Amino acid sequence: MTMATLARPRTHRHLLDVEGLGRADLERILDLAVEMRDARAARTHRSMLEAETVGLAFYEASTRTRVSFELAAKALGATVVDLRIAGSSVGKGESLVDTVRTLERTGVTILVLRHASAGAAHLAARTTGLRVVNAGDGAHAHPTQALADALTLREAIGPLEGRMVAIVGDVLHSRVARSNIHALGTLGARIRVAGPSAWTAGFDEWPGVEVATTLEEALSGADAVMALRVQLERGAGLPADHATHWRLDEERMALALPGARILHPGPTNEGVEITADLANGPRSLIGRQVENGVPVRMAVLAPLAGVA
Amino acid sequence: MTMATLARPRTHRHLLDVEGLGRADLERILDLAVEMRDARAARTHRSMLEAETVGLAFYEASTRTRVSFELAAKALGATVVDLRIAGSSVGKGESLVDTVRTLERTGVTILVLRHASAGAAHLAARTTGLRVVNAGDGAHAHPTQALADALTLREAIGPLEGRMVAIVGDVLHSRVARSNIHALGTLGARIRVAGPSAWTAGFDEWPGVEVATTLEEALSGADAVMALRVQLERGAGLPADHATHWRLDEERMALALPGARILHPGPTNEGVEITADLANGPRSLIGRQVENGVPVRMAVLAPLAGVA
Amino acid sequence: MTMATLARPRTHRHLLDVEGLGRADLERILDLAVEMRDARAARTHRSMLEAETVGLAFYEASTRTRVSFELAAKALGATVVDLRIAGSSVGKGESLVDTVRTLERTGVTILVLRHASAGAAHLAARTTGLRVVNAGDGAHAHPTQALADALTLREAIGPLEGRMVAIVGDVLHSRVARSNIHALGTLGARIRVAGPSAWTAGFDEWPGVEVATTLEEALSGADAVMALRVQLERGAGLPADHATHWRLDEERMALALPGARILHPGPTNEGVEITADLANGPRSLIGRQVENGVPVRMAVLAPLAGVA
Repeated sequence: MTMATLARPRTHRHLLDVEGLGRADLERILDLAVEMRDARAARTHRSMLEAETVGLAFYEASTRTRVSFELAAKALGATVVDLRIAGSSVGKGESLVDTVRTLERTGVTILVLRHASAGAAHLAARTTGLRVVNAGDGAHAHPTQALADALTLREAIGPLEGRMVAIVGDVLHSRVARSNIHALGTLGARIRVAGPSAWTAGFDEWPGVEVATTLEEALSGADAVMALRVQLERGAGLPADHATHWRLDEERMALALPGARILHPGPTNEGVEITADLANGPRSLIGRQVENGVPVRMAVLAPLAGVA
Repeated sequence: MTMATLARPRTHRHLLDVEGLGRADLERILDLAVEMRDARAARTHRSMLEAETVGLAFYEASTRTRVSFELAAKALGATVVDLRIAGSSVGKGESLVDTVRTLERTGVTILVLRHASAGAAHLAARTTGLRVVNAGDGAHAHPTQALADALTLREAIGPLEGRMVAIVGDVLHSRVARSNIHALGTLGARIRVAGPSAWTAGFDEWPGVEVATTLEEALSGADAVMALRVQLERGAGLPADHATHWRLDEERMALALPGARILHPGPTNEGVEITADLANGPRSLIGRQVENGVPVRMAVLAPLAGVA
Repeated sequence: MTMATLARPRTHRHLLDVEGLGRADLERILDLAVEMRDARAARTHRSMLEAETVGLAFYEASTRTRVSFELAAKALGATVVDLRIAGSSVGKGESLVDTVRTLERTGVTILVLRHASAGAAHLAARTTGLRVVNAGDGAHAHPTQALADALTLREAIGPLEGRMVAIVGDVLHSRVARSNIHALGTLGARIRVAGPSAWTAGFDEWPGVEVATTLEEALSGADAVMALRVQLERGAGLPADHATHWRLDEERMALALPGARILHPGPTNEGVEITADLANGPRSLIGRQVENGVPVRMAVLAPLAGVA
């Protein structure tokens, strides 16, 4: 299939992270996602993955990402099987490698894996013949979220070349931030990260990344700002004055460019990292980020059809 | 589709409760359910919902209702995705409104919602563009159960006009009772409720509802009796002498009309609100109530196809 | 369908255990599994079970068996519904019989049941009209595992007539062992069981079964050896010196015939009943056992299509 062939980064049979994908690769995936959005509505691609069996292995609980992948795979006609690991006792006695090898042997061909350990998706790709899509691994990467965010931003503000995107909050623990820094940067955006110093340490060494020391500084002249969810579950204690210094609100948004847009990977802690007014207001792209999740995942899965 | 158009209560794009549905509306749904039973067996309607994505969001654990909805949606060709909320940690940090909005953004078009809070389905319908089917909300309503019960009773004893139906037990905490009072009453039945006085208080003010103070009085001359499950999980403590006064047994059934039938929403607490002999005997319609669950839910879902 | 008719043991509408199946019955199922493996790859049988609804009721957690049955049923076009009992509160208040009767009434036609109680599948078959496939009942039987093992062994070493298979470890608590003794024995193999004496007591009274008192004696001249998982969850305490006497390792395998193969029902406790080297080495058939799980289950499900 020409479209899929064009869209697939030629050196990849997995989507483990966005690092290593070039600008043309990323643009192709986003273009394909737009096609997939239409194809889904028209139900024209319902046999594209009919020969594939997609296994969903979410070791961390998830609603939106799991549902998005499930709907993307089903929209393309894949057989979908969910391991239902999170919250169950399943898999406790078995290593990740053993579990994914077993999955492969049952005939699963494409693995969608979320795991608390950074590198889990790479490990699965290395130790099996499965085509692996990383649905989030520890604090390392969440490539399909970054792709959905990039598409959302591109559709809202146009080409990202030279645009300034501020990513603020708990950058350290955020796989979403890491993948967005790579994706948006590769697409030409300038990236500014900001947050309590313990949460941004080291990011000044990332190429093309600027570290701001206050939220105000980060927002100054920004085309878009991404507020991050404080990931309490990953050990990030919330300082008592966090909201005072780091909550995105109307007043602070006035420092950004007119028309600047707001992203958040969701679910939001309203009142913590962002006010409810902003999260639900006209500048917010949060709903669009979710909407783009399914077509982007279709665009990631579709090119894997029949890959040997 | 003519059939579906006829069957759909014209002012509704949801099924939130049976209140507000007129007799003709109810009769149309029951007639459609009979058609759906045949259609399911013949597999003739397997593309009716092919453009729809049905999201199952059960915040309370359920086997029979969830399975019935899942099978009904699949029999009509819908894409089905289950949020698997009950028993998981999913959704704990997110409000109902946020969760259902997210679902809508992933492309879910029809939401089947069970929730412990009365009004949850109405809230989802009000705050999203989803078409919503209430699968039980607190002690408020369980419309598809009432429709299955009404169909079961109509098939067993004929038209309900003027027939006396006794609903006995823990009426206060029963969404099934509330929805049945509306549905059966609208279909012309006379309703008599009975139970310990704390559990029937206030029902004498419902139009067309008579309150009996003993089980014997309730059964006298009844065409059918619905024994309710004591809903211990909703805080209804069971008086020590409950069974003595309120358990449906052979002897008491002799007070009802010859041929009177027995309903129960299940699962039964055998020996508590009903004897095992009666629950499993020839007058029991309990099995038929379950059997009618899938075609009734098909009849509720089918008219939602393509509704804007 | 001729193939299915031939393959179905004529006196059965369930697969509850392998006892009672004759050699020709077993050979037919294994032959059909080989056909099914090809049919799955070619996607030629995707409407074979289109009129059937397969209910998965796993009262014990399982990944590989549940996924194998789900993929087998889907490969044949069945509607699949999972009760999701294990790890949930569902079903706690309801007896097995009530639950499976309810399932039948929702239109499920084929029940795949795993349960901690020996005889559960027989009970379900006796009390409903469901066609029942036993996916493991207590320490009693696991017929589809034994069929997958028999197929694996037949493909690896040829016809089983006269071949010696050692089954070692916690035989007493193993439903896999019991079903394999029946299946492999019926197919002509000689069976030698071995393990700590408390775990093999009584097996010398089984027809055609020989009990060895040491692992070395069990392995002597064996064509294949099946190491069993120590079933700690069934109350089998592990003696401190278990590995010393009973762990399968390279040195001990030298006592078996040259080319002897190794089976294990998985998941393995590496280092306990088998060394990691052996489990992952060239003589191991463990991966093939899993691979054969789906086609064998297709071969078990397919002949149930349309059975009255």
